[in-house]
Amino acid sequence: MATVIVAGGGVIGLGTAWRAAQRGFSVTVADPSPGQGASHAAAGMLTPVSEASYTEKELFALGAASLERYPGFVAELTAATGQPTGFRQTGTLQVGYDADDLAVIDDLHALHDSLGVPGRRLTTRECRRLEPMLDPSVRGGLLAETDGSIDPRLLTRALLAAAAQAGVRLIRQPVAQIIHDAERTPAGSGTGPGPGPDGGSAGEDPHGEGPHGGGRVRGVCLADGTTITADWTVLATGWNSAAINGLPADCVPPVRPVKGQVVRLRAPDGFLHRTVRGIVRGSSVYLVPRDDGELVVGATQEELGPDTHVTAGGLWELLRDARALVPGITELEFTEAVARLRPGTPDNAPILGPCAAAGLVLATGHFRNGVLLTPVTADVIADYLETGWLPDVAAHFTIGRFQQSRPGPGGRPDQGGRPG
Amino acid sequence: MATVIVAGGGVIGLGTAWRAAQRGFSVTVADPSPGQGASHAAAGMLTPVSEASYTEKELFALGAASLERYPGFVAELTAATGQPTGFRQTGTLQVGYDADDLAVIDDLHALHDSLGVPGRRLTTRECRRLEPMLDPSVRGGLLAETDGSIDPRLLTRALLAAAAQAGVRLIRQPVAQIIHDAERTPAGSGTGPGPGPDGGSAGEDPHGEGPHGGGRVRGVCLADGTTITADWTVLATGWNSAAINGLPADCVPPVRPVKGQVVRLRAPDGFLHRTVRGIVRGSSVYLVPRDDGELVVGATQEELGPDTHVTAGGLWELLRDARALVPGITELEFTEAVARLRPGTPDNAPILGPCAAAGLVLATGHFRNGVLLTPVTADVIADYLETGWLPDVAAHFTIGRFQQSRPGPGGRPDQGGRPG
Repeated sequence: MATVIVAGGGVIGLGTAWRAAQRGFSVTVADPSPGQGASHAAAGMLTPVSEASYTEKELFALGAASLERYPGFVAELTAATGQPTGFRQTGTLQVGYDADDLAVIDDLHALHDSLGVPGRRLTTRECRRLEPMLDPSVRGGLLAETDGSIDPRLLTRALLAAAAQAGVRLIRQPVAQIIHDAERTPAGSGTGPGPGPDGGSAGEDPHGEGPHGGGRVRGVCLADGTTITADWTVLATGWNSAAINGLPADCVPPVRPVKGQVVRLRAPDGFLHRTVRGIVRGSSVYLVPRDDGELVVGATQEELGPDTHVTAGGLWELLRDARALVPGITELEFTEAVARLRPGTPDNAPILGPCAAAGLVLATGHFRNGVLLTPVTADVIADYLETGWLPDVAAHFTIGRFQQSRPGPGGRPDQGGRPG
Repeated sequence: MATVIVAGGGVIGLGTAWRAAQRGFSVTVADPSPGQGASHAAAGMLTPVSEASYTEKELFALGAASLERYPGFVAELTAATGQPTGFRQTGTLQVGYDADDLAVIDDLHALHDSLGVPGRRLTTRECRRLEPMLDPSVRGGLLAETDGSIDPRLLTRALLAAAAQAGVRLIRQPVAQIIHDAERTPAGSGTGPGPGPDGGSAGEDPHGEGPHGGGRVRGVCLADGTTITADWTVLATGWNSAAINGLPADCVPPVRPVKGQVVRLRAPDGFLHRTVRGIVRGSSVYLVPRDDGELVVGATQEELGPDTHVTAGGLWELLRDARALVPGITELEFTEAVARLRPGTPDNAPILGPCAAAGLVLATGHFRNGVLLTPVTADVIADYLETGWLPDVAAHFTIGRFQQSRPGPGGRPDQGGRPG
């Protein structure tokens, strides 16, 4: 049985481990505290439409593909484990607070049209008919009826249970190092470490080594020195993915920590009926209601390095903007403020699939979309492990797109080697 | 050895228990979670001057007397236990944000003069020289140099240790009921339950029963049904003091829950040097720095019954006002938001000393001043238990002042009976 070690037990790592185990791989996940990274703070919006921007059409397509898989994904999870996930598909209402904010909503509406996505432009009155708690000064909105949401903490719990049932082994330790075979110069490249000017493709020999100058990746070394050998190593450690020792230079994912602060409140039944996103004097805020009464308000975005402190200013901004849209939140119980680090990338899109080092597969850089992209990521990585080919929906998202010598986005991605 | 049961293990109950044990009483404190009520949220300002208002001169005198005792009180506590209390006597700077707010500061300054209290009126520039983090738009301030502060959580811990050392027994259970001797009609009253029209004084017979129609209070019954008999029962259960069963009608302290919400931040060394209180567009806020970097921001005041939820609105108001005075707080780490209930009284002053029921002593209703008034309360209640007389400094504060048939504030309070 081929073996897989997944570094990182957030929703991406756990989802991938579960799917790989279902395909017959022997899978181990290493994470000192599964689900306690970005997954722990995530609000769980499933809104490919609202998140899309003009420069991110491929990302929209990936998100839409993942949202399409969600109902089946969570049904399967719950059937396997008996555990709920909080999945709802009640839509997103995106609103503008002042005239400038409304102009952004109109741009978004035009984008929806260009993507062929149904989005309904609403007046203030129509918005308030849907969500009576909205402030009357809201200028108008846009309804995306197929958007959904999920409770990422429930999702993590269900994934942990499903993975365990499928035979996945969990080791509560961080991965310290990638290990590989003794270094040797690969045939046809000869440039040593770093990408060669020819952008040498590892896919040419599915059983060979990558062009990075190291041997095939053979697993990981944990923080306590234990070595876990595996045919495949999946890197799913989020913002920290670049910091693991032993990554060949051309396999280091260009991720950076982007801090997000999130507040949790408790709301009475029917306080909000769907996700409300708003632009308030140029500043973005969202409110995600759950069936159990939790109302998640997020999220700030700060790039200050790997700091997970909740700040007085972050908290104040979230409450200020949420209060402007929905004044009734002032009466709600405050239950938690939490900050975590999302793995930002240069183009806000994830990094998926093989890289120059044979045996190493990337599943990281999901930025604000990790929860949304969990089903599609799990599927495409499991597909790749099984077949050696990355499905088309993910083809745009290999690390190759960041390497100067490669063709731009849209080109056929490199395909990494299969285990020997 | 005469016995005392203290109902309530906040700073007032623990301080009183400690002092009573030092005088030779055998003392028991009953509280399901000592120090977890109002003491847990308290910022620990020791500011009799800043708190004073024109209608509360006796309260100011009581607060000033307590502040005077504080250095000795905490020195004795720390000497006995080796534990710190966070006591500092670095003053309070009270500032006004706009012209109307500054007018309030000027009124306060005039009050200081009338009380003979040194308070120095400062310009914006002088305020910012003392506290460079203050916003330049602050209009001016008033410095009370002798004010102090303490960490109420450290104080609670030290009091628990000191009380235990002095032989106080702690029972982690709530008091459910006051118990007394079989009811009998007291001589000279004959009016049955409730205060007689003559306002019958229990002090006339130090060994007799009170005029309330019940027998002498003989201790308490705990939630699990255990009875603790005692010569003296001290009621120190804060906002909940009126809810204990078995209190004679004329001994029920007129306390009500007043919710206070408080935020804790972490500040770098030297962020603020002293307590800063401000009036920001009519709304009060304070920031209390501690040597260990904690910065406490408080406090809201809401009267919505016994609810201890932190609300989004409370949090937002505190951060809004604190940010207006000290914009630099936005960068500070948020560590905690907590709400607790203070025991409000009709005149904002505590209820101290004997009542109509012999054997029952009140030490409650401290509202916003519980921490400040801990040393003087502990001393005067211990004095009363030992001598049967309430010291003059507390004479104004018996429950008698709320009873219509009694002389108004300033009259000699009733003195309860001593144990037989």
